Amino acid sequence: MAQRFTTQRHVQFADTDMGGIVHFSNYFRYMEEAEHAFLNSLDIPIVDEQDTHTLSWPRVSASFEYMLPLRYPGTIDIHIQISKLGTSSITYTALFEQAGAGVARGSVTAVCCAINEGNISSTPIPDDLRARLSAFVSEK
Amino acid sequence: MAQRFTTQRHVQFADTDMGGIVHFSNYFRYMEEAEHAFLNSLDIPIVDEQDTHTLSWPRVSASFEYMLPLRYPGTIDIHIQISKLGTSSITYTALFEQAGAGVARGSVTAVCCAINEGNISSTPIPDDLRARLSAFVSEK
Amino acid sequence: MAQRFTTQRHVQFADTDMGGIVHFSNYFRYMEEAEHAFLNSLDIPIVDEQDTHTLSWPRVSASFEYMLPLRYPGTIDIHIQISKLGTSSITYTALFEQAGAGVARGSVTAVCCAINEGNISSTPIPDDLRARLSAFVSEK
Amino acid sequence: MAQRFTTQRHVQFADTDMGGIVHFSNYFRYMEEAEHAFLNSLDIPIVDEQDTHTLSWPRVSASFEYMLPLRYPGTIDIHIQISKLGTSSITYTALFEQAGAGVARGSVTAVCCAINEGNISSTPIPDDLRARLSAFVSEK
Repeated sequence: MAQRFTTQRHVQFADTDMGGIVHFSNYFRYMEEAEHAFLNSLDIPIVDEQDTHTLSWPRVSASFEYMLPLRYPGTIDIHIQISKLGTSSITYTALFEQAGAGVARGSVTAVCCAINEGNISSTPIPDDLRARLSAFVSEK
Repeated sequence: MAQRFTTQRHVQFADTDMGGIVHFSNYFRYMEEAEHAFLNSLDIPIVDEQDTHTLSWPRVSASFEYMLPLRYPGTIDIHIQISKLGTSSITYTALFEQAGAGVARGSVTAVCCAINEGNISSTPIPDDLRARLSAFVSEK
Repeated sequence: MAQRFTTQRHVQFADTDMGGIVHFSNYFRYMEEAEHAFLNSLDIPIVDEQDTHTLSWPRVSASFEYMLPLRYPGTIDIHIQISKLGTSSITYTALFEQAGAGVARGSVTAVCCAINEGNISSTPIPDDLRARLSAFVSEK
Repeated sequence: MAQRFTTQRHVQFADTDMGGIVHFSNYFRYMEEAEHAFLNSLDIPIVDEQDTHTLSWPRVSASFEYMLPLRYPGTIDIHIQISKLGTSSITYTALFEQAGAGVARGSVTAVCCAINEGNISSTPIPDDLRARLSAFVSEK
Protein backbone atom coordinates (compact mmCIF):
# COMPACT_ATOMS: atom_id res chain seq x y z
CA MET A 1 0.00 0.00 0.00
CA ALA A 2 1.20 3.47 -0.83
CA GLN A 3 2.64 5.64 1.89
CA ARG A 4 1.51 9.20 2.35
CA PHE A 5 3.41 12.16 3.72
CA THR A 6 1.64 14.30 6.30
CA THR A 7 2.48 17.77 7.50
CA GLN A 8 0.61 20.29 9.60
CA ARG A 9 0.34 24.08 9.37
CA HIS A 10 -1.47 26.91 11.02
CA VAL A 11 -3.89 28.93 8.94
CA GLN A 12 -2.59 32.51 8.80
CA PHE A 13 -4.65 35.66 9.36
CA ALA A 14 -3.14 37.33 6.27
CA ASP A 15 -4.46 34.48 4.11
CA THR A 16 -8.11 35.19 4.93
CA ASP A 17 -10.31 37.58 2.95
CA MET A 18 -13.21 39.84 3.87
CA GLY A 19 -15.54 36.86 3.49
CA GLY A 20 -13.97 35.57 6.71
CA ILE A 21 -12.38 32.48 5.13
CA VAL A 22 -9.02 31.62 3.57
CA HIS A 23 -8.88 33.00 0.03
CA PHE A 24 -9.01 30.16 -2.50
CA SER A 25 -5.71 31.17 -4.15
CA ASN A 26 -3.77 30.59 -0.93
CA TYR A 27 -4.52 26.86 -0.87
CA PHE A 28 -2.09 26.53 -3.78
CA ARG A 29 0.71 28.03 -1.71
CA TYR A 30 -0.17 25.76 1.21
CA MET A 31 -0.09 22.74 -1.13
CA GLU A 32 3.32 23.77 -2.48
CA GLU A 33 4.71 24.16 1.04
CA ALA A 34 3.58 20.60 1.82
CA GLU A 35 5.02 19.29 -1.47
CA HIS A 36 8.35 20.95 -0.66
CA ALA A 37 8.33 19.56 2.88
CA PHE A 38 7.70 16.13 1.34
CA LEU A 39 10.61 16.49 -1.11
CA ASN A 40 12.86 17.73 1.71
CA SER A 41 11.95 14.64 3.72
CA LEU A 42 13.30 12.57 0.80
CA ASP A 43 16.40 14.75 0.45
CA ILE A 44 15.30 15.92 -3.00
CA PRO A 45 16.21 19.58 -3.66
CA ILE A 46 13.54 21.90 -5.09
CA VAL A 47 16.10 23.96 -6.99
CA ASP A 48 19.22 21.95 -7.83
CA GLU A 49 22.01 24.10 -9.24
CA GLN A 50 24.28 21.94 -11.37
CA ASP A 51 27.30 22.92 -13.46
CA THR A 52 25.57 23.66 -16.75
CA HIS A 53 21.96 24.17 -15.68
CA THR A 54 19.47 24.23 -12.83
CA LEU A 55 17.05 21.36 -12.26
CA SER A 56 13.67 22.48 -11.01
CA TRP A 57 9.96 21.70 -11.21
CA PRO A 58 7.75 24.13 -13.17
CA ARG A 59 4.04 23.33 -13.06
CA VAL A 60 1.85 22.37 -16.03
CA SER A 61 -1.43 22.21 -14.14
CA ALA A 62 -2.94 22.74 -10.71
CA SER A 63 -6.43 22.42 -9.30
CA PHE A 64 -8.44 22.45 -6.08
CA GLU A 65 -11.86 21.33 -4.94
CA TYR A 66 -13.12 23.22 -1.90
CA MET A 67 -15.43 21.18 0.31
CA LEU A 68 -15.61 23.23 3.51
CA PRO A 69 -14.53 26.79 4.32
CA LEU A 70 -11.15 27.16 6.03
CA ARG A 71 -11.13 29.64 8.88
CA TYR A 72 -8.64 31.49 11.04
CA PRO A 73 -7.46 30.51 13.60
CA GLY A 74 -7.07 26.86 12.83
CA THR A 75 -4.67 24.09 12.01
CA ILE A 76 -4.80 21.80 8.99
CA ASP A 77 -3.26 18.43 8.26
CA ILE A 78 -2.03 18.12 4.70
CA HIS A 79 -1.59 14.63 3.29
CA ILE A 80 0.54 14.28 0.16
CA GLN A 81 0.56 11.36 -2.24
CA ILE A 82 1.65 10.90 -5.85
CA SER A 83 -1.19 9.96 -8.19
CA LYS A 84 1.05 9.69 -11.28
CA LEU A 85 4.81 9.32 -11.63
CA GLY A 86 5.57 9.85 -15.31
CA THR A 87 8.85 9.88 -17.20
CA SER A 88 9.49 13.51 -16.44
CA SER A 89 6.39 14.60 -14.53
CA ILE A 90 4.90 14.07 -11.08
CA THR A 91 1.25 14.59 -10.20
CA TYR A 92 0.75 15.16 -6.50
CA THR A 93 -2.53 15.06 -4.62
CA ALA A 94 -3.00 17.00 -1.42
CA LEU A 95 -5.82 16.33 1.01
CA PHE A 96 -6.49 19.07 3.58
CA GLU A 97 -8.15 17.89 6.77
CA GLN A 98 -9.39 19.60 9.93
CA ALA A 99 -10.36 17.46 12.92
CA GLY A 100 -10.46 14.45 10.62
CA ALA A 101 -12.84 16.00 8.07
CA GLY A 102 -11.69 16.69 4.50
CA VAL A 103 -11.88 20.41 3.74
CA ALA A 104 -10.17 20.54 0.33
CA ARG A 105 -8.51 18.32 -2.21
CA GLY A 106 -5.79 19.65 -4.51
CA SER A 107 -3.60 18.41 -7.31
CA VAL A 108 -0.53 19.79 -9.02
CA THR A 109 1.54 18.40 -11.89
CA ALA A 110 5.20 19.38 -11.95
CA VAL A 111 7.70 18.65 -14.71
CA CYS A 112 11.37 18.00 -14.11
CA CYS A 113 13.10 20.69 -16.15
CA ALA A 114 16.62 21.79 -16.97
CA ILE A 115 16.69 25.58 -16.80
CA ASN A 116 19.55 27.49 -18.40
CA GLU A 117 19.55 31.25 -18.89
CA GLY A 118 15.80 31.38 -19.22
CA ASN A 119 15.54 28.33 -21.48
CA ILE A 120 13.37 25.63 -19.95
CA SER A 121 13.28 22.06 -21.25
CA SER A 122 11.81 18.92 -19.70
CA THR A 123 14.15 16.09 -18.74
CA PRO A 124 13.56 12.57 -17.34
CA ILE A 125 13.35 12.33 -13.56
CA PRO A 126 16.74 10.96 -12.40
CA ASP A 127 16.56 7.29 -11.34
CA ASP A 128 17.67 7.86 -7.76
CA LEU A 129 14.88 10.41 -7.24
CA ARG A 130 12.34 8.10 -8.85
CA ALA A 131 13.32 5.32 -6.47
CA ARG A 132 12.70 7.56 -3.46
CA LEU A 133 9.38 8.83 -4.80
CA SER A 134 7.90 5.48 -5.81
CA ALA A 135 6.77 4.42 -2.33
CA PHE A 136 4.31 7.31 -2.35
CA VAL A 137 2.55 6.47 -5.63
CA SER A 138 -1.08 5.77 -4.75
CA GLU A 139 -2.73 2.72 -6.21
CA LYS A 140 -5.51 3.11 -8.70
CA MET B 1 -22.32 33.42 -30.64
CA ALA B 2 -21.22 33.98 -27.09
CA GLN B 3 -19.56 37.21 -26.14
CA ARG B 4 -16.35 37.28 -24.18
CA PHE B 5 -15.06 39.90 -21.78
CA THR B 6 -11.45 40.98 -22.21
CA THR B 7 -9.21 42.86 -19.81
CA GLN B 8 -5.50 43.55 -19.73
CA ARG B 9 -3.01 43.67 -16.88
CA HIS B 10 0.69 44.09 -16.33
CA VAL B 11 2.62 41.21 -14.85
CA GLN B 12 4.04 42.39 -11.51
CA PHE B 13 7.61 41.86 -10.29
CA ALA B 14 6.40 40.71 -6.86
CA ASP B 15 4.46 37.89 -8.53
CA THR B 16 7.58 36.24 -9.97
CA ASP B 17 9.64 33.62 -8.15
CA MET B 18 13.34 32.73 -8.14
CA GLY B 19 12.72 30.57 -11.22
CA GLY B 20 12.31 33.85 -13.10
CA ILE B 21 8.63 33.31 -13.97
CA VAL B 22 5.27 34.19 -12.41
CA HIS B 23 4.52 31.78 -9.55
CA PHE B 24 1.69 29.42 -10.51
CA SER B 25 -0.46 30.42 -7.51
CA ASN B 26 -0.67 34.03 -8.69
CA TYR B 27 -2.57 33.14 -11.86
CA PHE B 28 -5.58 32.45 -9.64
CA ARG B 29 -5.49 36.00 -8.29
CA TYR B 30 -5.12 37.36 -11.83
CA MET B 31 -8.14 35.28 -12.93
CA GLU B 32 -10.20 36.58 -10.01
CA GLU B 33 -9.31 40.18 -10.85
CA ALA B 34 -10.53 39.60 -14.40
CA GLU B 35 -13.72 37.88 -13.16
CA HIS B 36 -14.42 40.83 -10.86
CA ALA B 37 -13.76 43.34 -13.65
CA PHE B 38 -16.22 41.34 -15.76
CA LEU B 39 -18.90 41.40 -13.03
CA ASN B 40 -18.30 45.12 -12.50
CA SER B 41 -18.84 45.68 -16.22
CA LEU B 42 -22.28 44.08 -15.77
CA ASP B 43 -22.99 46.09 -12.62
CA ILE B 44 -23.03 42.91 -10.50
CA PRO B 45 -21.54 43.46 -7.02
CA ILE B 46 -19.00 40.93 -5.71
CA VAL B 47 -20.11 41.41 -2.12
CA ASP B 48 -23.73 42.53 -1.87
CA GLU B 49 -24.74 43.52 1.65
CA GLN B 50 -28.47 43.12 2.04
CA ASP B 51 -30.66 43.59 5.12
CA THR B 52 -30.51 40.08 6.55
CA HIS B 53 -27.43 38.62 4.85
CA THR B 54 -24.60 39.18 2.42
CA LEU B 55 -24.67 37.71 -1.09
CA SER B 56 -21.26 36.64 -2.33
CA TRP B 57 -19.50 34.00 -4.41
CA PRO B 58 -17.39 31.40 -2.58
CA ARG B 59 -15.53 28.99 -4.84
CA VAL B 60 -16.03 25.23 -5.05
CA SER B 61 -13.25 24.52 -7.52
CA ALA B 62 -10.46 26.20 -9.45
CA SER B 63 -7.85 24.99 -11.91
CA PHE B 64 -5.17 26.14 -14.33
CA GLU B 65 -3.23 24.66 -17.21
CA TYR B 66 0.09 26.39 -17.83
CA MET B 67 1.18 26.32 -21.47
CA LEU B 68 4.00 28.88 -21.57
CA PRO B 69 5.96 30.63 -18.81
CA LEU B 70 4.79 34.12 -17.90
CA ARG B 71 7.61 36.61 -17.40
CA TYR B 72 8.16 40.06 -16.01
CA PRO B 73 7.92 42.65 -17.49
CA GLY B 74 4.97 41.86 -19.70
CA THR B 75 1.31 42.43 -20.35
CA ILE B 76 -1.38 39.80 -20.66
CA ASP B 77 -4.84 39.81 -22.18
CA ILE B 78 -7.35 37.88 -20.13
CA HIS B 79 -10.50 36.67 -21.88
CA ILE B 80 -13.41 35.62 -19.68
CA GLN B 81 -16.35 33.47 -20.69
CA ILE B 82 -18.89 31.38 -18.81
CA SER B 83 -18.72 27.68 -19.62
CA LYS B 84 -21.63 26.74 -17.34
CA LEU B 85 -24.39 28.85 -15.81
CA GLY B 86 -26.14 26.62 -13.25
CA THR B 87 -29.02 27.30 -10.88
CA SER B 88 -26.74 28.74 -8.23
CA SER B 89 -23.25 28.32 -9.70
CA ILE B 90 -21.16 29.90 -12.45
CA THR B 91 -18.14 28.28 -14.06
CA TYR B 92 -15.85 30.83 -15.67
CA THR B 93 -13.03 30.12 -18.08
CA ALA B 94 -10.10 32.49 -18.40
CA LEU B 95 -7.70 32.44 -21.32
CA PHE B 96 -4.41 34.29 -20.77
CA GLU B 97 -2.73 35.49 -23.96
CA GLN B 98 0.51 37.29 -24.76
CA ALA B 99 1.03 38.66 -28.25
CA GLY B 100 -1.84 36.51 -29.44
CA ALA B 101 -0.44 33.23 -28.06
CA GLY B 102 -2.24 31.34 -25.30
CA VAL B 103 -0.07 31.09 -22.20
CA ALA B 104 -2.53 29.63 -19.68
CA ARG B 105 -6.12 28.52 -19.37
CA GLY B 106 -7.97 28.67 -16.07
CA SER B 107 -11.36 27.82 -14.69
CA VAL B 108 -13.16 28.67 -11.48
CA THR B 109 -16.60 27.67 -10.23
CA ALA B 110 -18.30 30.09 -7.86
CA VAL B 111 -21.56 29.52 -5.99
CA CYS B 112 -24.04 32.25 -5.19
CA CYS B 113 -24.27 32.16 -1.40
CA ALA B 114 -26.14 33.94 1.36
CA ILE B 115 -23.68 34.57 4.18
CA ASN B 116 -24.96 35.44 7.63
CA GLU B 117 -22.76 35.55 10.73
CA GLY B 118 -20.44 32.89 9.38
CA ASN B 119 -23.21 30.64 8.04
CA ILE B 120 -22.91 30.07 4.31
CA SER B 121 -25.73 28.58 2.21
CA SER B 122 -26.15 28.44 -1.55
CA THR B 123 -29.02 30.32 -3.14
CA PRO B 124 -30.31 30.56 -6.74
CA ILE B 125 -28.69 33.24 -8.87
CA PRO B 126 -31.19 36.13 -9.01
CA ASP B 127 -32.99 36.38 -12.37
CA ASP B 128 -31.79 39.86 -13.21
CA LEU B 129 -28.15 38.79 -12.76
CA ARG B 130 -28.73 35.64 -14.81
CA ALA B 131 -30.10 37.73 -17.65
CA ARG B 132 -26.98 39.89 -17.73
CA LEU B 133 -24.62 36.89 -17.54
CA SER B 134 -26.30 34.77 -20.20
CA ALA B 135 -24.77 36.55 -23.20
CA PHE B 136 -21.35 35.30 -22.09
CA VAL B 137 -22.20 31.59 -21.88
CA SER B 138 -19.98 29.83 -24.41
CA GLU B 139 -21.52 27.28 -26.71
CA LYS B 140 -20.65 23.66 -26.39
CA MET C 1 15.56 42.07 31.91
CA ALA C 2 12.92 41.81 29.24
CA GLN C 3 12.04 38.43 27.85
CA ARG C 4 11.82 37.83 24.13
CA PHE C 5 9.68 35.35 22.23
CA THR C 6 11.42 33.30 19.54
CA THR C 7 9.91 31.29 16.72
CA GLN C 8 11.37 29.66 13.65
CA ARG C 9 10.07 29.32 10.11
CA HIS C 10 11.19 28.02 6.77
CA VAL C 11 11.57 30.47 3.93
CA GLN C 12 9.09 29.48 1.21
CA PHE C 13 9.83 29.22 -2.51
CA ALA C 14 6.68 31.16 -3.40
CA ASP C 15 7.94 34.13 -1.36
CA THR C 16 11.04 34.64 -3.52
CA ASP C 17 11.14 36.87 -6.59
CA MET C 18 13.06 36.73 -9.87
CA GLY C 19 15.97 38.46 -8.12
CA GLY C 20 16.49 35.15 -6.29
CA ILE C 21 15.68 36.53 -2.82
CA VAL C 22 12.59 36.84 -0.63
CA HIS C 23 10.48 39.77 -1.83
CA PHE C 24 10.61 42.61 0.70
CA SER C 25 6.81 42.69 1.15
CA ASN C 26 6.75 39.13 2.47
CA TYR C 27 8.81 40.00 5.56
CA PHE C 28 5.71 41.78 6.87
CA ARG C 29 3.68 38.58 6.66
CA TYR C 30 6.49 36.66 8.35
CA MET C 31 6.58 39.28 11.13
CA GLU C 32 2.82 39.04 11.62
CA GLU C 33 2.98 35.25 11.84
CA ALA C 34 5.59 35.57 14.60
CA GLU C 35 3.52 38.24 16.40
CA HIS C 36 0.47 35.97 16.28
CA ALA C 37 2.48 32.97 17.53
CA PHE C 38 3.66 35.21 20.38
CA LEU C 39 0.10 36.28 21.27
CA ASN C 40 -1.06 32.66 21.06
CA SER C 41 1.69 31.70 23.48
CA LEU C 42 0.15 34.20 25.94
CA ASP C 43 -3.38 32.97 25.24
CA ILE C 44 -4.34 36.33 23.72
CA PRO C 45 -6.76 35.95 20.78
CA ILE C 46 -6.03 37.88 17.56
CA VAL C 47 -9.71 38.28 16.75
CA ASP C 48 -11.88 38.20 19.86
CA GLU C 49 -15.59 38.08 19.07
CA GLN C 50 -17.53 39.52 21.99
CA ASP C 51 -21.28 40.13 22.34
CA THR C 52 -21.49 43.64 20.97
CA HIS C 53 -18.25 43.95 19.01
CA THR C 54 -15.03 42.27 17.91
CA LEU C 55 -11.70 43.16 19.52
CA SER C 56 -8.80 43.10 17.08
CA TRP C 57 -5.53 44.81 16.25
CA PRO C 58 -5.43 47.00 13.13
CA ARG C 59 -2.01 48.45 12.33
CA VAL C 60 -1.06 52.15 12.30
CA SER C 61 2.51 51.70 11.08
CA ALA C 62 4.96 49.06 9.95
CA SER C 63 8.58 49.14 8.81
CA PHE C 64 11.57 46.97 7.94
CA GLU C 65 15.28 47.41 7.55
CA TYR C 66 16.87 44.81 5.29
CA MET C 67 20.48 44.02 6.21
CA LEU C 68 21.18 40.81 4.27
CA PRO C 69 19.28 39.05 1.47
CA LEU C 70 17.04 36.18 2.54
CA ARG C 71 17.25 33.14 0.28
CA TYR C 72 15.41 29.92 -0.36
CA PRO C 73 15.88 27.29 0.99
CA GLY C 74 16.60 28.49 4.49
CA THR C 75 15.33 28.81 8.00
CA ILE C 76 15.04 31.99 10.04
CA ASP C 77 14.75 32.65 13.74
CA ILE C 78 12.36 35.49 14.53
CA HIS C 79 12.72 37.20 17.90
CA ILE C 80 9.79 39.31 19.10
CA GLN C 81 9.88 41.98 21.78
CA ILE C 82 7.66 44.93 22.64
CA SER C 83 9.40 48.29 22.34
CA LYS C 84 6.38 50.30 23.51
CA LEU C 85 3.25 49.26 25.39
CA GLY C 86 0.89 52.24 25.25
CA THR C 87 -2.63 52.72 26.59
CA SER C 88 -4.22 51.16 23.54
CA SER C 89 -1.26 50.40 21.26
CA ILE C 90 1.61 47.92 21.11
CA THR C 91 4.80 48.41 19.13
CA TYR C 92 6.53 45.13 18.40
CA THR C 93 10.06 44.68 17.12
CA ALA C 94 11.05 41.61 15.15
CA LEU C 95 14.66 40.56 14.61
CA PHE C 96 15.22 38.03 11.82
CA GLU C 97 18.37 35.95 12.20
CA GLN C 98 20.05 33.25 10.14
CA ALA C 99 22.89 31.28 11.68
CA GLY C 100 23.17 33.92 14.38
CA ALA C 101 23.50 36.87 11.97
CA GLY C 102 20.82 39.55 11.83
CA VAL C 103 19.26 39.69 8.37
CA ALA C 104 16.38 42.11 8.97
CA ARG C 105 14.76 44.18 11.67
CA GLY C 106 11.07 45.02 11.59
CA SER C 107 8.56 46.95 13.62
CA VAL C 108 4.80 47.12 13.65
CA THR C 109 2.41 49.17 15.79
CA ALA C 110 -1.02 47.68 16.40
CA VAL C 111 -3.94 49.38 18.12
CA CYS C 112 -6.48 47.57 20.24
CA CYS C 113 -9.79 48.30 18.49
CA ALA C 114 -13.44 47.52 18.96
CA ILE C 115 -14.88 46.70 15.53
CA ASN C 116 -18.62 46.76 15.00
CA GLU C 117 -20.27 46.56 11.58
CA GLY C 118 -17.35 48.24 9.90
CA ASN C 119 -16.90 50.92 12.57
CA ILE C 120 -13.44 50.80 14.10
CA SER C 121 -12.57 52.65 17.33
CA SER C 122 -9.53 52.31 19.59
CA THR C 123 -10.00 51.04 23.13
CA PRO C 124 -7.61 50.60 26.09
CA ILE C 125 -5.77 47.28 26.21
CA PRO C 126 -7.56 45.19 28.86
CA ASP C 127 -5.58 44.89 32.12
CA ASP C 128 -5.25 41.13 32.05
CA LEU C 129 -3.68 41.28 28.58
CA ARG C 130 -1.38 44.11 29.62
CA ALA C 131 -0.14 42.03 32.55
CA ARG C 132 0.78 39.15 30.27
CA LEU C 133 2.48 41.40 27.71
CA SER C 134 4.55 43.45 30.16
CA ALA C 135 7.32 40.88 30.66
CA PHE C 136 8.27 41.35 27.00
CA VAL C 137 8.68 45.12 27.06
CA SER C 138 12.33 45.82 26.21
CA GLU C 139 14.22 48.28 28.34
CA LYS C 140 15.32 51.56 26.90
CA MET D 1 8.72 72.69 -7.78
CA ALA D 2 9.05 68.95 -7.82
CA GLN D 3 6.84 66.91 -10.06
CA ARG D 4 4.98 63.89 -8.79
CA PHE D 5 3.91 60.78 -10.64
CA THR D 6 0.33 59.62 -10.14
CA THR D 7 -1.22 56.27 -10.93
CA GLN D 8 -4.52 54.68 -10.02
CA ARG D 9 -5.44 51.12 -9.09
CA HIS D 10 -8.44 49.16 -7.95
CA VAL D 11 -8.33 47.56 -4.53
CA GLN D 12 -8.57 43.79 -5.01
CA PHE D 13 -10.82 41.42 -3.05
CA ALA D 14 -7.96 38.95 -2.52
CA ASP D 15 -5.97 41.68 -0.74
CA THR D 16 -8.54 42.09 2.05
CA ASP D 17 -8.49 40.10 5.28
CA MET D 18 -11.21 38.86 7.62
CA GLY D 19 -11.16 42.26 9.34
CA GLY D 20 -12.82 43.57 6.18
CA ILE D 21 -9.94 45.84 5.14
CA VAL D 22 -6.85 45.54 2.96
CA HIS D 23 -4.14 43.65 4.84
CA PHE D 24 -1.30 45.99 5.80
CA SER D 25 1.34 43.90 4.00
CA ASN D 26 -0.35 44.43 0.63
CA TYR D 27 0.24 48.19 0.67
CA PHE D 28 3.92 47.41 0.03
CA ARG D 29 3.06 45.55 -3.16
CA TYR D 30 0.78 48.39 -4.24
CA MET D 31 3.60 50.88 -3.59
CA GLU D 32 6.04 48.79 -5.64
CA GLU D 33 3.59 48.60 -8.54
CA ALA D 34 3.35 52.40 -8.52
CA GLU D 35 7.15 52.76 -8.28
CA HIS D 36 7.57 50.44 -11.26
CA ALA D 37 4.92 52.30 -13.25
CA PHE D 38 6.84 55.49 -12.45
CA LEU D 39 10.17 54.02 -13.63
CA ASN D 40 8.48 52.66 -16.76
CA SER D 41 7.16 56.15 -17.49
CA LEU D 42 10.81 57.32 -17.47
CA ASP D 43 11.95 54.38 -19.60
CA ILE D 44 14.06 53.01 -16.72
CA PRO D 45 14.06 49.19 -16.60
CA ILE D 46 13.46 47.46 -13.26
CA VAL D 47 15.68 44.52 -14.15
CA ASP D 48 18.36 45.47 -16.68
CA GLU D 49 20.27 42.48 -18.00
CA GLN D 50 23.68 43.60 -19.17
CA ASP D 51 26.58 41.53 -20.51
CA THR D 52 28.38 40.78 -17.27
CA HIS D 53 25.69 41.43 -14.66
CA THR D 54 22.12 42.48 -14.00
CA LEU D 55 21.27 45.94 -12.69
CA SER D 56 18.36 45.97 -10.29
CA TRP D 57 17.02 47.65 -7.15
CA PRO D 58 17.03 45.63 -3.91
CA ARG D 59 15.45 47.39 -0.94
CA VAL D 60 17.20 48.43 2.28
CA SER D 61 14.15 49.75 4.09
CA ALA D 62 10.42 50.15 3.70
CA SER D 63 7.68 51.62 5.88
CA PHE D 64 4.04 52.60 5.95
CA GLU D 65 1.80 54.76 8.11
CA TYR D 66 -1.86 53.76 7.92
CA MET D 67 -4.26 56.67 8.43
CA LEU D 68 -7.60 55.25 7.28
CA PRO D 69 -8.74 51.71 6.50
CA LEU D 70 -8.71 50.73 2.84
CA ARG D 71 -11.78 48.79 1.74
CA TYR D 72 -12.95 46.72 -1.17
CA PRO D 73 -14.33 47.71 -3.61
CA GLY D 74 -12.52 50.96 -4.13
CA THR D 75 -10.01 52.85 -6.16
CA ILE D 76 -6.89 54.61 -4.89
CA ASP D 77 -4.68 57.28 -6.33
CA ILE D 78 -1.00 56.70 -5.62
CA HIS D 79 1.32 59.69 -5.82
CA ILE D 80 5.05 58.97 -6.09
CA GLN D 81 7.87 61.37 -5.33
CA ILE D 82 11.54 60.98 -4.49
CA SER D 83 12.47 62.26 -1.05
CA LYS D 84 16.18 61.46 -1.41
CA LEU D 85 18.30 60.75 -4.48
CA GLY D 86 21.65 59.47 -3.19
CA THR D 87 24.75 58.28 -5.01
CA SER D 88 23.43 54.78 -5.37
CA SER D 89 20.10 54.86 -3.54
CA ILE D 90 16.63 56.29 -4.10
CA THR D 91 14.07 56.90 -1.37
CA TYR D 92 10.55 57.05 -2.74
CA THR D 93 7.48 58.30 -0.94
CA ALA D 94 4.03 57.09 -1.86
CA LEU D 95 0.84 58.84 -0.82
CA PHE D 96 -2.35 56.80 -1.14
CA GLU D 97 -5.51 58.86 -1.53
CA GLN D 98 -9.20 58.04 -1.80
CA ALA D 99 -11.62 60.79 -2.84
CA GLY D 100 -8.91 63.33 -2.06
CA ALA D 101 -8.27 62.09 1.51
CA GLY D 102 -4.90 60.59 2.45
CA VAL D 103 -5.33 56.99 3.57
CA ALA D 104 -1.70 55.89 3.87
CA ARG D 105 1.82 57.16 3.40
CA GLY D 106 4.66 54.82 2.48
CA SER D 107 8.37 54.99 1.86
CA VAL D 108 10.87 52.60 0.34
CA THR D 109 14.62 52.94 -0.18
CA ALA D 110 16.09 51.01 -3.10
CA VAL D 111 19.77 50.64 -3.93
CA CYS D 112 21.13 50.38 -7.44
CA CYS D 113 22.94 47.03 -7.46
CA ALA D 114 24.95 44.92 -9.85
CA ILE D 115 23.85 41.32 -9.42
CA ASN D 116 26.02 38.51 -10.74
CA GLU D 117 25.42 34.84 -9.92
CA GLY D 118 23.94 35.67 -6.55
CA ASN D 119 26.56 38.30 -5.65
CA ILE D 120 24.96 41.67 -5.00
CA SER D 121 26.98 44.90 -4.82
CA SER D 122 25.82 48.51 -4.85
CA THR D 123 26.83 50.73 -7.75
CA PRO D 124 26.30 54.44 -8.52
CA ILE D 125 23.06 55.31 -10.29
CA PRO D 126 24.00 55.90 -13.96
CA ASP D 127 24.00 59.59 -14.91
CA ASP D 128 21.34 59.31 -17.58
CA LEU D 129 18.93 57.70 -15.09
CA ARG D 130 19.75 60.32 -12.47
CA ALA D 131 18.91 63.06 -14.94
CA ARG D 132 15.48 61.59 -15.59
CA LEU D 133 14.75 61.03 -11.90
CA SER D 134 15.83 64.46 -10.66
CA ALA D 135 12.64 66.31 -11.63
CA PHE D 136 10.75 64.22 -9.06
CA VAL D 137 12.94 65.00 -6.05
CA SER D 138 10.72 66.76 -3.52
CA GLU D 139 12.00 69.89 -1.85
CA LYS D 140 12.81 69.88 1.81
